[in-house]
Amino acid sequence: MRLSGYFMPTMKETPAEAEIVSHRLMLRAGMIRQASAGIYSWLPLGFRVLKKIEQIVREEQDRAGAQEVLMPTIQSADLWKESGRYDAYGPEMLRIQDRHGRDMLYGPTNEELITEIFRSAVRSYRDLPRMLYHIQWKFRDEVRPRFGVMRGREFLMKDNYSFDLDYAGAKRSYNKMFVAYLRTFARMGLQAIPMEAETGPIGGDLSHEFIILADTGESEVFCHRDFVEFDVLGAGIDYQSDLEPVVEAWTKLYARTDDKHDPAAFENQVPEDKRVHRRGIEVGHIFYFGTKYSDPLKALVATPEGEAVAVHMGSYGIGVSRLVGAVIEASHDEAGIVWPEPVAPFRVGLINLKTADAACTKACEETYAKLRDAGVEVLYDDRDERPGAKFNDMDLIGLPWQLVIGPRGLAKGVVELKRRRDAEREELSLDSALARLTG
Amino acid sequence: MRLSGYFMPTMKETPAEAEIVSHRLMLRAGMIRQASAGIYSWLPLGFRVLKKIEQIVREEQDRAGAQEVLMPTIQSADLWKESGRYDAYGPEMLRIQDRHGRDMLYGPTNEELITEIFRSAVRSYRDLPRMLYHIQWKFRDEVRPRFGVMRGREFLMKDNYSFDLDYAGAKRSYNKMFVAYLRTFARMGLQAIPMEAETGPIGGDLSHEFIILADTGESEVFCHRDFVEFDVLGAGIDYQSDLEPVVEAWTKLYARTDDKHDPAAFENQVPEDKRVHRRGIEVGHIFYFGTKYSDPLKALVATPEGEAVAVHMGSYGIGVSRLVGAVIEASHDEAGIVWPEPVAPFRVGLINLKTADAACTKACEETYAKLRDAGVEVLYDDRDERPGAKFNDMDLIGLPWQLVIGPRGLAKGVVELKRRRDAEREELSLDSALARLTG
Repeated sequence: MRLSGYFMPTMKETPAEAEIVSHRLMLRAGMIRQASAGIYSWLPLGFRVLKKIEQIVREEQDRAGAQEVLMPTIQSADLWKESGRYDAYGPEMLRIQDRHGRDMLYGPTNEELITEIFRSAVRSYRDLPRMLYHIQWKFRDEVRPRFGVMRGREFLMKDNYSFDLDYAGAKRSYNKMFVAYLRTFARMGLQAIPMEAETGPIGGDLSHEFIILADTGESEVFCHRDFVEFDVLGAGIDYQSDLEPVVEAWTKLYARTDDKHDPAAFENQVPEDKRVHRRGIEVGHIFYFGTKYSDPLKALVATPEGEAVAVHMGSYGIGVSRLVGAVIEASHDEAGIVWPEPVAPFRVGLINLKTADAACTKACEETYAKLRDAGVEVLYDDRDERPGAKFNDMDLIGLPWQLVIGPRGLAKGVVELKRRRDAEREELSLDSALARLTG
Repeated sequence: MRLSGYFMPTMKETPAEAEIVSHRLMLRAGMIRQASAGIYSWLPLGFRVLKKIEQIVREEQDRAGAQEVLMPTIQSADLWKESGRYDAYGPEMLRIQDRHGRDMLYGPTNEELITEIFRSAVRSYRDLPRMLYHIQWKFRDEVRPRFGVMRGREFLMKDNYSFDLDYAGAKRSYNKMFVAYLRTFARMGLQAIPMEAETGPIGGDLSHEFIILADTGESEVFCHRDFVEFDVLGAGIDYQSDLEPVVEAWTKLYARTDDKHDPAAFENQVPEDKRVHRRGIEVGHIFYFGTKYSDPLKALVATPEGEAVAVHMGSYGIGVSRLVGAVIEASHDEAGIVWPEPVAPFRVGLINLKTADAACTKACEETYAKLRDAGVEVLYDDRDERPGAKFNDMDLIGLPWQLVIGPRGLAKGVVELKRRRDAEREELSLDSALARLTG
């Protein structure tokens, strides 16, 4: 993509309304624009990141055996009245009347609707287990939306729902999602730690939040240092195998947010030199809730003995749009965003230091063509701007690699390759640089 | 994908509520489920088709130089009051009040919001032309939604907006979209014909609907037979070249829907043996509307002479979810759907005629693995069902190829390959069949 023709309205000023760094940087990098309070439009650069994150989430859901569907944003209130949540849900639910005066709502979540879909089609234990997910926009009418996409009103979420005959089956589904989440966040370059979470009136221990560590995080977290060094299972993982040992390894150590933190237990269970006390951001939540919805909505399946029982369910959410902000919170510096490669909007930023110089522009154009031919995602700064402005913009938008081509270097036969992560710069021949970036 | 574990609730009965064939077949094939009037959930099979159509639309928008953004579904009413459309729009607009009593709406279209985004960032002719599009759910509160996804209330639409300095530039953008639309529909296996459409109070001739011919179409169309034989430009098309001759070739012949039909002109301009009078379905609409929104919303750009003028705009829509139904209307038979290959949910349906037969199942499993390894999208019917039920389901869901493996054939060293389109069957060795499907 040529920057001269790219819709990427960067800002030099720090927007006054943005309280946290991801919000500031997303606005300054021209990734988003506020449409109204807590509601954002995704501009081309931001949209690319959103899609990359969505795709990683999708691939890991599919790998774990979940099947993708797509439920609508607008739901009838009827099912929510059946489940009892229509009245229970507070003013965060956006309630709507259609032209015929029927009660509708903008879905804040989809337990009711997916349960209705399930009960309409599945009758027997033979058709279990099932995991159905979708990636769809949700709405929660926050009283005071803030923090940009980290706590917006309209947000993109992946929500998966599992259906099993009994608790044992539900636990297997839960474990699959537990492992899928570890893999999902690791692929984005994030260190996510599963932490015990509230289970509400159902009780039990099957509820975990996945928290990434970031100094600017919304909540305090307390955990064992060994978490930071754990390896996540590779892509070859067999989701049909027993995942209980993996889940146990990841849950036996202390890890809690401030809500559930117990200082005595923390000191008891974690040696002093292993105690981590930092801030964190929730990026996912998995939850087993048994027959909470299948009971009132009568989603029954026949057991092998012919008895009709309510199906056991769990739900598994990942905040897809929130993750765009969360990655930035976890990975930025004074100059701007530092994208982990797997979610970077482009891999390489190609900077033409002097567009008026014919030889320099020729070298840049050829390089741009070669990188594209090799399938490298490249943003080419071909604008007639001062080098300083180009460097600043490129640092701000945080692409992993900057390839800088200028007349002086070319005269010496070199270009500069800069790694954004640690600002390491190297002078090398253009061919070597190309080999590095396409290799 | 193994059918035994796939969430594809097919139905034998024809659903009473479905008035048109695409609606009936989508329900019967387990592609969608109605969530409430005119609002559908997309089940795994339907979702795959929706995504394939979306991706073709996206690729052709990108190829034509448009940039993808994503605007929210919920908009503030403020901009619509600025443009004057808030009052003008009828009860089809879903109006909402948020918890603070602010007027919001579920976007039926996005001219206002994209104009606001544009005006916030672009000031000069140097930054023109621009084309920005998104693929997002829209809502139109139809008084009597029907025809399934062909006329739903919540629907997925691609809408692109062009920004140019003057009419001449806007015409170039219009021509790009005109050609992109021809390519988009051709890639889906559809014959789309551009027909003159209403321009409303703006006048001029820059408004075309793209209509596909289908016996079950919603409107009558009258056109010159030569359209059906026109070639569409290949992928190598240069969108920077002058596209006017292409557009002229596609617009000089008579082609009108009943709204604009003029029997005298039709008889005058089209020789009797070239007159086509059929039914059609609108799948896209392109429209130049000048400064209709940039004037009230003050989206101004500086000309080379330094004058501030309202930017010239056009909008270009494709009904993405509607296309799923439209393809079926154009391509089905008594037994079910007949997917054109580019939008088929899977390319091959593999039928195991006797799962209880060890040799047969072994051959099927190996074939399934080989097809997947070769990157072929295959749905494997490994269910313990009678062959008749399997044939019926496979015809119903309309995958382009059926590979049928049974004990008797295997004993003779053959399998059967059936092409869904014309039911042509061939007995051949398994290796030959594999070579055909992976070649």
